[in-house]
Amino acid sequence: MSDAVLHKVSSNKAFEGELIKYKFKSAALGGLDAHFNLYLPANATDNTKVPVLVYLAGLTCTEDNGAQKGSFLGVASSQGIAILFPDTSPRGAGVPGEDDDWDFGTGAGFYLNATKPEYATHYNMLTHITLELPQVIEAARLPIDFKRQSIFGHSMGGHGALTLYLASKTKQYRSASAFSPICNPSKCPWGEKAFRGYLQGGVEEGMQQYDATELISKSKEPVHILIDYGTGDNFYKQGQLLPENFLKAARDVGYDEVQVRVRSHDAYDHSYYFISTFASDHIHFHANFLKA
Amino acid sequence: MSDAVLHKVSSNKAFEGELIKYKFKSAALGGLDAHFNLYLPANATDNTKVPVLVYLAGLTCTEDNGAQKGSFLGVASSQGIAILFPDTSPRGAGVPGEDDDWDFGTGAGFYLNATKPEYATHYNMLTHITLELPQVIEAARLPIDFKRQSIFGHSMGGHGALTLYLASKTKQYRSASAFSPICNPSKCPWGEKAFRGYLQGGVEEGMQQYDATELISKSKEPVHILIDYGTGDNFYKQGQLLPENFLKAARDVGYDEVQVRVRSHDAYDHSYYFISTFASDHIHFHANFLKA
Repeated sequence: MSDAVLHKVSSNKAFEGELIKYKFKSAALGGLDAHFNLYLPANATDNTKVPVLVYLAGLTCTEDNGAQKGSFLGVASSQGIAILFPDTSPRGAGVPGEDDDWDFGTGAGFYLNATKPEYATHYNMLTHITLELPQVIEAARLPIDFKRQSIFGHSMGGHGALTLYLASKTKQYRSASAFSPICNPSKCPWGEKAFRGYLQGGVEEGMQQYDATELISKSKEPVHILIDYGTGDNFYKQGQLLPENFLKAARDVGYDEVQVRVRSHDAYDHSYYFISTFASDHIHFHANFLKA
Repeated sequence: MSDAVLHKVSSNKAFEGELIKYKFKSAALGGLDAHFNLYLPANATDNTKVPVLVYLAGLTCTEDNGAQKGSFLGVASSQGIAILFPDTSPRGAGVPGEDDDWDFGTGAGFYLNATKPEYATHYNMLTHITLELPQVIEAARLPIDFKRQSIFGHSMGGHGALTLYLASKTKQYRSASAFSPICNPSKCPWGEKAFRGYLQGGVEEGMQQYDATELISKSKEPVHILIDYGTGDNFYKQGQLLPENFLKAARDVGYDEVQVRVRSHDAYDHSYYFISTFASDHIHFHANFLKA
């Protein structure tokens, strides 16, 4: 994978740094073109590598939503932290049905590695984000220090951030945070549909491997987790997010408020207006660990 | 006009305040539905009116672009200033040809009142923004103090901000600022096309009434103007913006750096990444006058 060549698609100066869009042939995604955005703060130079925060976007999104609407770049610039914005799924895999629904298939990769044969060739967002992107970025000699990584995300991307953080045996990420995350996917319609669609073992396989509430209930290591959600979020009200389940599981195994903090915000909804309101909080949270 | 009824289309909590999308039947736009977004900071209450900053967006944009991508809301919240985001043109006027080009017609109203008969019924963005929106918002008893208004914008909207500010005989706006504005439209392709298309008197009529460089050269009053542009902006390089012309005209009639400040920023482009970088500067600039 590491011999993939990055092509610069576009570049925008922002907050003295640079937001660059790249594409490359992704082995993890079955040879399809993959796009990502990388924000490099001005202090990142040929001689100075900077820590990196990975942002995983939600259903229907691409590598652009967080960069354009998240209000992350200014704070990342002032903190000297890069932000990596991957896409949310392979594009153009050609699996029959992958474009039928907005909450499954294209734009909805759920940050897992599919095991059903029809999806297993292309739908490997877990490998794409945890292994492939660091490899291709390092191979391109971009000034990122992948020994200092943290991860955050929104909704499906919040699920991704929590599960990639908690499941990593190599402790790849120093901290995880999430806006309005899907916290217990084996118990909500979005998650059940994704697990049944992508995994041969269905919801049971998903629950074992990709359910943040299940993972935290088995976790024994120190963790650094921040979750924010709004009480005006319709998906929260519909039971798609279930942050209370995650919080209860964390407290039941002894994590305190310093290790797992779950905040409820009156009347905020599921939109990027909510995200941008707490964007600075999240980046400062991760800066504590990335710059330690 | 003031008896138009506002309908709330949507609402999002953001930075403790509320971003509300409204629509109403616009007399200025020939009876078509007009949409706008209004950000109300938390300190705006039934008993406390707040000052307002009008944001005019650029070609192809709607009332959403500035709200979603401008990074304005957090600063407006902390400063206690409302932001009004109008649309950029009437929608669905049905004038033959209005949807043929991205730089004329729908999404490209140029913040003027058309005088060509085929456009004059609907393309009256000047009246819509300076008279109609304040009237319908006051009639709806929203907590905005229109005696404390300033105006800013991007590209075509920067042209709008500068010309509405400079042409207002009632001194409607206390200050004006612009990102990458079209500064001398009678001397650039975008402006010439708009003036020829909307105005019976063509470029000559536009030069007299809607050209910021012409207007500043005839201005004798004290002004408060801030302009930012990037040297990496392709439209700047193509001669669509001409900020040097505006600056020269301002200096020629005696405005100093305090009254007219034009800043060039190395390598920044025409995008919202540029705008968001300097968003806080602009809102603080206007706060000086709105809160005086």
